[in-house]
Amino acid sequence: MTDTDLVSLRRDLHRKPEPAWREFYTTARIVEELQSRVDLDALHVGPDATVADQRMGVPDAAELAAWHDRAREAGADEELLAELEGGHTGAVAVLERGEGPTVGLRVDIDALPREESDDPDHAPVAEGFRSEHEGAMHACGHDAHATIGIGVLQRIAESDFAGTLKVFFQPAEEVIGGGKSMAKSEHIEDVDYLLALHIGLDHPTGEIVAGIDGFLAVRHLEATFSGASAHAGGHPEQGRNAVQAMAAAVQNLYSIPRHNDGATRVNAGVAEGGSAPNVIPEEARILAEVRGETTDLMEYMHETAERVLRSAAEMHDCDLEIEIGADAPSATSDDELVSIVADVAGDANGVDRVLERDALGGSEDATYLMREVQQHGGLACYVGVGTDHPGGHHTATFDVDEASIGHGIETIAGAIDRIGRDRP
Amino acid sequence: MTDTDLVSLRRDLHRKPEPAWREFYTTARIVEELQSRVDLDALHVGPDATVADQRMGVPDAAELAAWHDRAREAGADEELLAELEGGHTGAVAVLERGEGPTVGLRVDIDALPREESDDPDHAPVAEGFRSEHEGAMHACGHDAHATIGIGVLQRIAESDFAGTLKVFFQPAEEVIGGGKSMAKSEHIEDVDYLLALHIGLDHPTGEIVAGIDGFLAVRHLEATFSGASAHAGGHPEQGRNAVQAMAAAVQNLYSIPRHNDGATRVNAGVAEGGSAPNVIPEEARILAEVRGETTDLMEYMHETAERVLRSAAEMHDCDLEIEIGADAPSATSDDELVSIVADVAGDANGVDRVLERDALGGSEDATYLMREVQQHGGLACYVGVGTDHPGGHHTATFDVDEASIGHGIETIAGAIDRIGRDRP
Amino acid sequence: MTDTDLVSLRRDLHRKPEPAWREFYTTARIVEELQSRVDLDALHVGPDATVADQRMGVPDAAELAAWHDRAREAGADEELLAELEGGHTGAVAVLERGEGPTVGLRVDIDALPREESDDPDHAPVAEGFRSEHEGAMHACGHDAHATIGIGVLQRIAESDFAGTLKVFFQPAEEVIGGGKSMAKSEHIEDVDYLLALHIGLDHPTGEIVAGIDGFLAVRHLEATFSGASAHAGGHPEQGRNAVQAMAAAVQNLYSIPRHNDGATRVNAGVAEGGSAPNVIPEEARILAEVRGETTDLMEYMHETAERVLRSAAEMHDCDLEIEIGADAPSATSDDELVSIVADVAGDANGVDRVLERDALGGSEDATYLMREVQQHGGLACYVGVGTDHPGGHHTATFDVDEASIGHGIETIAGAIDRIGRDRP
Amino acid sequence: MTDTDLVSLRRDLHRKPEPAWREFYTTARIVEELQSRVDLDALHVGPDATVADQRMGVPDAAELAAWHDRAREAGADEELLAELEGGHTGAVAVLERGEGPTVGLRVDIDALPREESDDPDHAPVAEGFRSEHEGAMHACGHDAHATIGIGVLQRIAESDFAGTLKVFFQPAEEVIGGGKSMAKSEHIEDVDYLLALHIGLDHPTGEIVAGIDGFLAVRHLEATFSGASAHAGGHPEQGRNAVQAMAAAVQNLYSIPRHNDGATRVNAGVAEGGSAPNVIPEEARILAEVRGETTDLMEYMHETAERVLRSAAEMHDCDLEIEIGADAPSATSDDELVSIVADVAGDANGVDRVLERDALGGSEDATYLMREVQQHGGLACYVGVGTDHPGGHHTATFDVDEASIGHGIETIAGAIDRIGRDRP
Repeated sequence: MTDTDLVSLRRDLHRKPEPAWREFYTTARIVEELQSRVDLDALHVGPDATVADQRMGVPDAAELAAWHDRAREAGADEELLAELEGGHTGAVAVLERGEGPTVGLRVDIDALPREESDDPDHAPVAEGFRSEHEGAMHACGHDAHATIGIGVLQRIAESDFAGTLKVFFQPAEEVIGGGKSMAKSEHIEDVDYLLALHIGLDHPTGEIVAGIDGFLAVRHLEATFSGASAHAGGHPEQGRNAVQAMAAAVQNLYSIPRHNDGATRVNAGVAEGGSAPNVIPEEARILAEVRGETTDLMEYMHETAERVLRSAAEMHDCDLEIEIGADAPSATSDDELVSIVADVAGDANGVDRVLERDALGGSEDATYLMREVQQHGGLACYVGVGTDHPGGHHTATFDVDEASIGHGIETIAGAIDRIGRDRP
Repeated sequence: MTDTDLVSLRRDLHRKPEPAWREFYTTARIVEELQSRVDLDALHVGPDATVADQRMGVPDAAELAAWHDRAREAGADEELLAELEGGHTGAVAVLERGEGPTVGLRVDIDALPREESDDPDHAPVAEGFRSEHEGAMHACGHDAHATIGIGVLQRIAESDFAGTLKVFFQPAEEVIGGGKSMAKSEHIEDVDYLLALHIGLDHPTGEIVAGIDGFLAVRHLEATFSGASAHAGGHPEQGRNAVQAMAAAVQNLYSIPRHNDGATRVNAGVAEGGSAPNVIPEEARILAEVRGETTDLMEYMHETAERVLRSAAEMHDCDLEIEIGADAPSATSDDELVSIVADVAGDANGVDRVLERDALGGSEDATYLMREVQQHGGLACYVGVGTDHPGGHHTATFDVDEASIGHGIETIAGAIDRIGRDRP
Repeated sequence: MTDTDLVSLRRDLHRKPEPAWREFYTTARIVEELQSRVDLDALHVGPDATVADQRMGVPDAAELAAWHDRAREAGADEELLAELEGGHTGAVAVLERGEGPTVGLRVDIDALPREESDDPDHAPVAEGFRSEHEGAMHACGHDAHATIGIGVLQRIAESDFAGTLKVFFQPAEEVIGGGKSMAKSEHIEDVDYLLALHIGLDHPTGEIVAGIDGFLAVRHLEATFSGASAHAGGHPEQGRNAVQAMAAAVQNLYSIPRHNDGATRVNAGVAEGGSAPNVIPEEARILAEVRGETTDLMEYMHETAERVLRSAAEMHDCDLEIEIGADAPSATSDDELVSIVADVAGDANGVDRVLERDALGGSEDATYLMREVQQHGGLACYVGVGTDHPGGHHTATFDVDEASIGHGIETIAGAIDRIGRDRP
Repeated sequence: MTDTDLVSLRRDLHRKPEPAWREFYTTARIVEELQSRVDLDALHVGPDATVADQRMGVPDAAELAAWHDRAREAGADEELLAELEGGHTGAVAVLERGEGPTVGLRVDIDALPREESDDPDHAPVAEGFRSEHEGAMHACGHDAHATIGIGVLQRIAESDFAGTLKVFFQPAEEVIGGGKSMAKSEHIEDVDYLLALHIGLDHPTGEIVAGIDGFLAVRHLEATFSGASAHAGGHPEQGRNAVQAMAAAVQNLYSIPRHNDGATRVNAGVAEGGSAPNVIPEEARILAEVRGETTDLMEYMHETAERVLRSAAEMHDCDLEIEIGADAPSATSDDELVSIVADVAGDANGVDRVLERDALGGSEDATYLMREVQQHGGLACYVGVGTDHPGGHHTATFDVDEASIGHGIETIAGAIDRIGRDRP
């Protein structure tokens, strides 16, 4: 069973969903909650929690200001809000409990830019905690993740764990924009063991996946083709047709050769250009992403995609600008930590099935933190916490079974405790 | 020299540019002007001037209402405006002057949906008659055309012309949407000789082209591809990719074989689809046009384009809907009328060069009226009236040399007069 | 009626069809015939008739040697054959008849590399003069052209024409390979009036087209893509796929924008690459041609085609070599000569219809000679001589109505005679 | 160390390389060798070894006859050769040794249609056993495979193995053409344990891979596009362009979506069409292959490829014929047999490293036999026998280290022996 205070907290966060880099209310609320519940040794907030120029996908000033205002209206602490201005959201909470390993826990806190269902049977509607922000929704369970982060801190504070615990409340996961800015901060440098978690993922309540793998490295690219317009009837030969360049690029992006080293992906998720039927199109753009089972494979896709885009532009005498967007590397969960999580998960109340491994098959910027830790000799593990979710991830009827918040806290806290004992 | 009243009128129309089917102020202003200047025998306005269900490209009710309001605010007569509601713009003015041939003159009156230059050197800025409607502009000289129509009526009313003159103030030429609705009306049925005109066309002030030819028949097509979205990382194989279908279609539309019978054109003027980089695109659309030197050639392009669109959809397992938009046939100027215009043009004040023939190389829905007249045994001729224009047609710095308004009136009125005398 | 000796000559040439640069027997036979019939002032044969390094599309030595042997076996004069070795075929015959203009007549003499019909109803079969060379055929009437050239020389030799007549027996028209080599020779330099002719062209026996126009300028291109092979199952990513490059090029070649200045053409007539289903293709090539209503339009197509080919190669990381093949410019028939031909054609026995103008719609390397003459101030005219032909040009059942040989001789000789009188 | 007689045998086979279904000398030589070395209980040869109508990729009669003659000239037994006429090559040798399991061993015997290196440093040149057949070579080690098959039979005949051993000398592996014809024969029906092997695969001499997996299922497709030719200058619109259809197909074949269930492949290994630069191409064809990590994935690729081919043909108004060529399923090595092989391999003389598993990453028609055995309840295992090979598989300088023949015999015979003891 999950602590009723934590359920209230999760529901409050659910009511105020804030997309990437707009988590003003969310960050303030987390900070207040921590200050009231846990005797922390350090709490790094906003600009102190991330490396500012490593943040990716930060919206423009007007958008940030609008959400900042909204957070103020929702009653967030003014002083705290001031620290977060300009999209400096997120926090790192530190608990020092004597000699021992430094364990990190990363939880993400942002919402999605989509409308929540108003179906009376949808639990947040029935129970009165549906999103109060039009066009935004916690449709991927990060409200529960933030809650678990707080619960774990509280539980470890009360335990006899020896060592240091750092919880990374990370913004902007949905745009793979925040992981890097925390991975590049000094806070990660001394972390020996990193845990991360996700709720749901098509696993039911009561099921724990000890080690998630199969993260695809991912990168976003935006290609803008600039040609010259012309009258399509009068002087087609005077045009430099950006839509033809775009079409040639789309066809050849999808046909980048498959790679023997593992899975690759490419998608021209948005492709658009032109202004009117009787004008040779002057501008077009492709918003694409490439992925790979390893970061090398993703780089192979990226490099080849750039070559395709460039030649398609040349073919139709267009100029091309490519803007590299956000990205995230691949990562794997280390056997040693997976074993520990698998061991302790079985002891958590309500957990009735533990899977050793499963593949995500998608992308996640927790991988930035995992790799950072692994590269300086530490271990990392990404844990799946099953929850019955009526709608799929990212859909209007997504919701979590709140019992799983407790399962997550117990499993993660159990693992931290065990790490402290087994790996001094 | 152009009558200063007519210059004022042209500048007033220039200040209030109204795109296709939104010519509420323009129509009202023309009607008022005619009523004050000419003793007409009949004046058919709005729904009486066109066949309602033959209008193509009419915008939605909200858009029409907004422009209707704007016309009211600009001071158009309320009673007249009431007649025009719902996009029933345009007028046909009739002058009966005894026994003789029925001569038609068609002038178009709509503006373009584009912003006008605010360069202080741009004459409408310098002289204070720049467009007052944001995002709209008389960038193709139809303000001068409407003015010439009124000038011709006035001149013929004062002449000893014997016969009937009908002036068609036609809406919606820019979307090739209005020509058919006038060509199918009863007003065209008894027209023996039809004149139409265009100002500019890269000919300088003082030059008249007696007979314009080379109109390309044109048709618009809108193709909508519907597939299925899927997670681009997790399940690319579950998608049915509408952007891939669109790209295959674009590439193969432009490669429809050239035709030995004459010029053809195709343009995918707008091509757009998809929603986000990590989602396999579910929807895409192409807004295309096909043209041909003859209507048959345009039909060849249309038929082949449909086959390409259909197979591109099938190739990527998408559904397809094709909506046929507006069109216009090709047409030619008849030798007999061209000779008359060539003869009289030389006598007009300020005209110093007369060309027999030139090719438009674009499309025009005046061709609907020309063909209608020719099909019932009449003759038609499309006249070019040179004007120095600083910017190209459809650009932000287009403007006309107002002296050419007088050249147009004199040439057209001269031709009508001659028709009355030579062809009783 | 055509002279029976000339009919025999035409049938002998028909029996021994020789494709481009292989016209050994044909040249020898023409030379012998001229020597026996006409008292020439000069006869330039083989290397003296053309500029050797301007010959295009000359086959390799083995191919030339095989046809040279065949000509010897067919009974051609050994001494003459020796002069022609290495594909130096063709001849220029000169008749000097005192003061007066220099008139040129160009006739082409090569056959096509295709099998002739063996249908018993096919006249050459029925009358016993079917092709004796397997895989070669006079399927475009050049046997009749050569015969007309000889007939005209004979007729003018017997007339009171004052001036000089040069007849150019041109090799290799079918590969647009011989025209340039004669146009660059000194023989063309003093030609004031050039006539050329073609039989058939879908005009019936008894019809003459005084001036043919609408020659499309043409150029051949061969593009070779070189990538890298790889095992298609094991290491597709190691390939650099030449067939993908080829396919991207083909798609985008056909979609080069149409041009407002006139007709253009492009064709990827041969496209081939790859070696086996399980190998990523290493090599591919495209044999393409571009055409234009003017030479400028052809150059526009050529330039754009090269850009497409280059970018397609880059897109798939392949190397590219482009070899420019044969070409021919466009040309027009001059009014003054067209008038003369139209005038005299009506007087020819058996000619019952004279058309002023018609368009070829294809290409011809006579245009090289026509332009050369026009560029140094002379006039040129390409004449069509109607003939009933049962099968289309280039098909297995093509044949000419031999009566039209006489029509051609009379019309051309009549025109030369008239030029001598009218334009001293 | 490998038996010197076996080395001589391998070298004799190497001298007489025979590609798929042409293994006349090879089959005869194997039969003679078996008859002289082993006391077999049955020997099924040619038509008795395979199911005739399940053979795929059999060449035409003339090609077969030419190789049959060559085998006779090389000294193969006339009576045996008579049995093999028409491409009925291959053999199944049976040794019955009392009660016990039936174990099968499959070895392939065909060569490749490629020239062998004549570099003096290439061992077959230096040692005098280079290929005597121009354009054919044992470039994948099947000469060693056949030799191992004989060696294993001899070894088991001398052992105290209880059970039945069947060795399948399979023709036509290189065209994935022979596996099915043996898998569908009665000989496979009672096989309880099937072993297969391959030498090399980038593993060095002394290394054994106990269980090879990662066979990609594969299928060949030949698509023929038929359109209509036309004169590329005169009437491009009359063509139905098979090369355009082919190019559209190639582009879209390579862009079939990647699949989340595992690796897929597609290759348009040969793509060719058209006849001449000035003719719109009438015919074109694509020789393609599709692969998948599972047979289902291969079927997904096949189905989608057919849709792409069909729509590409329709897009350019062409007819399409698709011929399904040879194929092979995927397969896996069973754990139980892998363990046995791993166990015994370490005991073989000269083997110093044993890997449990490795992936082939290519295709193999041994999978037909493996699946057949597995489907009726048996177990199968594909063993890799390391050998130092100077050139890569399928290259001109491929060769085997003959020591590995002994490693293969010992490992396989050891495994058979163990199966007889452990699994009675």
